[in-house]
This record gives sequence, C-alpha cells and structure tokens, in this order.
Amino acid sequence: MDPVLVYSPYASDCPSRQLLDRIGDRWTVLIIGSLEEGPLRFSELRRRVEGISQKMLTQTLRSLETDGLVTRTVFAEIPPRVQYELSPLGRSLLEPLGALTRWATEHMDEVRAARGTLAS
Amino acid sequence: MDPVLVYSPYASDCPSRQLLDRIGDRWTVLIIGSLEEGPLRFSELRRRVEGISQKMLTQTLRSLETDGLVTRTVFAEIPPRVQYELSPLGRSLLEPLGALTRWATEHMDEVRAARGTLAS
Repeated sequence: MDPVLVYSPYASDCPSRQLLDRIGDRWTVLIIGSLEEGPLRFSELRRRVEGISQKMLTQTLRSLETDGLVTRTVFAEIPPRVQYELSPLGRSLLEPLGALTRWATEHMDEVRAARGTLAS
Repeated sequence: MDPVLVYSPYASDCPSRQLLDRIGDRWTVLIIGSLEEGPLRFSELRRRVEGISQKMLTQTLRSLETDGLVTRTVFAEIPPRVQYELSPLGRSLLEPLGALTRWATEHMDEVRAARGTLAS
C-alpha cells in the first residue's frame, strides 16, 4: 500500500506551499473566475482580465494546464480556434477563489478606512 | 450622500486588485492562519511559518497592521512583550483563506498527478 501523504503549507519544503502561491496569484484568480460561465478564447480572456499582458496570460494559462486546472482545445477551423475551459479540478477552485474575490471587494472600504485613505 | 463605490479586481485600476494580491500572498495566508487560535509573539509566529525570514515576517505583519487585519500590542514588561492578534476584520478572512489552504492540501495529489510527478 502507498503511504498516505499529508501536506501542510506551514512546512517550508511541502509542495502545497508552492501550490498555494499559484492558486492565490492574482492572475490565476482572475482567469479562473473569468472561465466560470464557460470556455473562452485567448482574446476574450485578455479583454476580461484588464491589463494582463499577452506574455503573462500565455504563461499563466500554461501553468494552469500543467496543473490540470484548465484544458486547451484547438478547433480545426480557418483560422484555427483555440479555447480554454475549466477542468473539473479547476471548477472545484471556483468556490474558494470566489470567496477570496468577494472578500476583497466587500471589505475594500474597511481596509481603506484602516489605511486612512478613504475620505469620510 | 456619498457615491456608492463598486470594486472589481477585473478592472486594472481598481484598488481591490492590489488587495487581492495582498490577501492571496502565501505569507499573509500562513500568518493569518497561524493567528486563528489566539495571539502570538513574533518568535512564535516565526516558528509556525517555517522558513519565513525575519525581514519578510516584519514586513508582512506591518502590511497586515496597516490594512487593519492584525493588531500589535506591546506589554510593558522587562523585556517588553510584543503580541500580534487578528482584528475582527482579520478574523473575517479566516474562512476564505482556510478554504484556500484546504484546497491546496486536499488537491495536491491531483495536481501532482496532472503534472506527472506523482509515482503511481
């Protein structure tokens, strides 16, 4: 029988720490959130995630593919259509990442008040 | 009346995008998680969050204080005791960040399998 692996990101050499980095990354959060409603093309993703560079989008999509979170499908059309879609594993991230995004938007005013940058 | 501010991290100039960066940061996640059970001293935090440098811990704690997520209390003892504690705003992050950490540890094997790095 295989040994049971227990992961903890509090341990410096645990691979779950690096995974935590990856899923908490701003571009991952925004790309996965953009794909919630269904598959999108590269150009559509680029429009939704305002300000992301072509290079960063390419790179992040590649990581998401490698980690099994996003699938890439090429349709043999002219010109070829390339589409990105959440895998079931990627869909399981929608809830935690959605909660993170909601927290940021819902508590922005409180954070700004703490920073003293919100005019009262 | 004040205008209602609506935040969206999909907009490149929205402050919630930078906040998302901050709360999704690995050190933020691990420090806030460490403070769940109650206040801790600097040295205790450093032991829990394995591998964090003194500089990074100082810097992250300062950001968390600025954003109103952590409070810092100095007790007039000899030597002075300094303690870090979650504010109510910081406590409201426990759930989303806990969900993120749980996801990373629970799905680590699936991600490793996708990467082809898990011996079967």
